[in-house]
Amino acid sequence: MAKHPQAYFWKVMAGELPPPRMADTLGITFTHIDADAGTIQTTFEAGPEFTNPAGHIQGGMLAAMLDDTMGPALAATLGPGQFAPTLNLNVSFERAAKVGVITGQGRVLKRGNDVCFLAGELFQDGQRIASATATALIRTMPTG
Amino acid sequence: MAKHPQAYFWKVMAGELPPPRMADTLGITFTHIDADAGTIQTTFEAGPEFTNPAGHIQGGMLAAMLDDTMGPALAATLGPGQFAPTLNLNVSFERAAKVGVITGQGRVLKRGNDVCFLAGELFQDGQRIASATATALIRTMPTG
Repeated sequence: MAKHPQAYFWKVMAGELPPPRMADTLGITFTHIDADAGTIQTTFEAGPEFTNPAGHIQGGMLAAMLDDTMGPALAATLGPGQFAPTLNLNVSFERAAKVGVITGQGRVLKRGNDVCFLAGELFQDGQRIASATATALIRTMPTG
Repeated sequence: MAKHPQAYFWKVMAGELPPPRMADTLGITFTHIDADAGTIQTTFEAGPEFTNPAGHIQGGMLAAMLDDTMGPALAATLGPGQFAPTLNLNVSFERAAKVGVITGQGRVLKRGNDVCFLAGELFQDGQRIASATATALIRTMPTG
């Protein structure tokens, strides 16, 4: 799982391409990326606009953060022209999350030639608030 | 599954309580609610701020829409002082979704005394884009 500097993820990291809009919406920062190990650490800013009737962060937004933690863990290992849509996402909500900083850890459990299995966790105030697994499929953009 | 007008969900529907912030973020509208049948129909406005590197709606945001479709299907059946946090959410992403209107259908598959199983689907341009199941647990707020 070598790092490809010309791949989309690393061009964004290098500031050569703009980040996706969703990255801004979630206030994501990558605090650690290891393409060889297939691991990543993220930080999110969970704002009041993400709150549910209980005043906690809506579970779907935690799913969005987990998706944006696990996806980049895999994206960091892709080559130029490759992308890896998530096919399935399974999230367990372990504790209520409040407005504020949420940190994430993602890892590539298995990176096949195309089928990949991912795992991720979110933490707040030192406690795990949610965990997830995902299935993703590596595809290569047609060149024309 | 009778409707309780004094329950939180119906007070919001009646304009007696403000909707949760997340409802505004997702641009949700309820187009059909049947508490007796445990079914609901929703409409969302998927904005450009939800897009991933491919320019499609990020999968996590579709999970958020499914959560806000299935959750209210159950919430519409709750009594005063009851709430039902989602414990687990499992989403399959069937097609890419683009910026624009997304509609949802949710239903209560089984409403136990406390454990509930939910299902939901999202559609865009007449095609299903994602489906999900969820597990929720009915709890009652302590009265003091």
